[in-house]
Amino acid sequence: MVLDGVRALVFDVFGTVVDWRSGVAREAEPFLKRHGAGTAIPTAFADTWRSRYSPAMEEVRSGRRPFTRLDVLHRENLEAVLPEFGIDPASVPVSELDELNLAWHRLEPWPDVVAGLTRLKARYIIAPLSNGNIVLMLNMAKRSGIPWDAILGAEVVRAYKPMPEAYLRTADVLAMKPDEICLVAAHNGDLAAARACGLRTAFVPRPTEHGLAQTTDLHPAQAWDLVASDFIDLAERLQL
Amino acid sequence: MVLDGVRALVFDVFGTVVDWRSGVAREAEPFLKRHGAGTAIPTAFADTWRSRYSPAMEEVRSGRRPFTRLDVLHRENLEAVLPEFGIDPASVPVSELDELNLAWHRLEPWPDVVAGLTRLKARYIIAPLSNGNIVLMLNMAKRSGIPWDAILGAEVVRAYKPMPEAYLRTADVLAMKPDEICLVAAHNGDLAAARACGLRTAFVPRPTEHGLAQTTDLHPAQAWDLVASDFIDLAERLQL
Repeated sequence: MVLDGVRALVFDVFGTVVDWRSGVAREAEPFLKRHGAGTAIPTAFADTWRSRYSPAMEEVRSGRRPFTRLDVLHRENLEAVLPEFGIDPASVPVSELDELNLAWHRLEPWPDVVAGLTRLKARYIIAPLSNGNIVLMLNMAKRSGIPWDAILGAEVVRAYKPMPEAYLRTADVLAMKPDEICLVAAHNGDLAAARACGLRTAFVPRPTEHGLAQTTDLHPAQAWDLVASDFIDLAERLQL
Repeated sequence: MVLDGVRALVFDVFGTVVDWRSGVAREAEPFLKRHGAGTAIPTAFADTWRSRYSPAMEEVRSGRRPFTRLDVLHRENLEAVLPEFGIDPASVPVSELDELNLAWHRLEPWPDVVAGLTRLKARYIIAPLSNGNIVLMLNMAKRSGIPWDAILGAEVVRAYKPMPEAYLRTADVLAMKPDEICLVAAHNGDLAAARACGLRTAFVPRPTEHGLAQTTDLHPAQAWDLVASDFIDLAERLQL
């Protein structure tokens, strides 16, 4: 059977489990209006904020900065991005910036996620393996009823994907061999890094993660162990 | 209201959530018989194994040893304890020792736990704050249906209770002030250490954790914020 010997499914979250772009845009819209940037496109704001995500983590991955949780990086990136939309961060009350930063804690899962994970949980340990920090994942899950067995990821292992340590230390925490774990992700790059560490791989494309004009990660870039159209399809392919 | 402002309940596990003594004794009994120690009392074996728990952690707490997860300490302690029962660990297949070590992953919750936690989860973030490592807590929870929102504890913060770091770093991970968190424990010492760090405290005595002749932790040693007879009573006192 496909994924034979796998005991844990670990999931990329931003894009794979939740629709970060719509969620951030939804919360940014009233904020932008309130601060004189009402003509800005909220999804463009979400994209611009998100564009600083990987460079910020790269400071940590490169060793130039000690491990710093994503909530802190998001908050710094928010202040860096506001001037691009004509907003002086010093003019905004700190509590409002803090609150907008929590938009990442309130992202909504794609419609198939909770039903699919509930079925997958019957046979597998299910946990996020996200670069998001623990309380971010926890708040998101509690709000939407995502039934994780544990919150794993970058903060637990103090390494950001796609560093090998993020995958290998997670296997160590689970006391499993890498090939007893399958990463489920909408991103070919994440799956390639996991495969290089010996994990199994399942690709679930999210063709509107970046909006209707998305051109990346629409198709599997390698022969992943499994390809499914969503989490319900994933459960069905695993006969759950 | 009692525990006003509290957003997360964190739980001691060994003794408070699960009956470690009966669980370890149940799995030790056939093992002892198989290895020529059939006259040994299984609960005495559990007590002896457990008696090495705190000294082993003390090596880590004192800084003499880097952080080492509890599964590893339990496994070392098992080999140290077998000769006291007339068993040469070198005479036992490694796979059998590994399997007996997993008895800690299969401990059963006290009968009120799952029902009580399910009610408490409706209002609070609920998570273990145990010295047990992540996969130990995860396997235990999955097997018994303990509905944790996340697995916190010593391995996440790389500090063993009752070191202040175990409580304070957990508050940091949760992005909460210490007094937004309440420790639920059957042990006055654990509660005292948590209170010294600013956490709120709830005492739930487990008068048979150490057997029918137990003399310790039968009563609250301080005026804890809350005292409840079990987790269902705790939920009721919190009007859940």
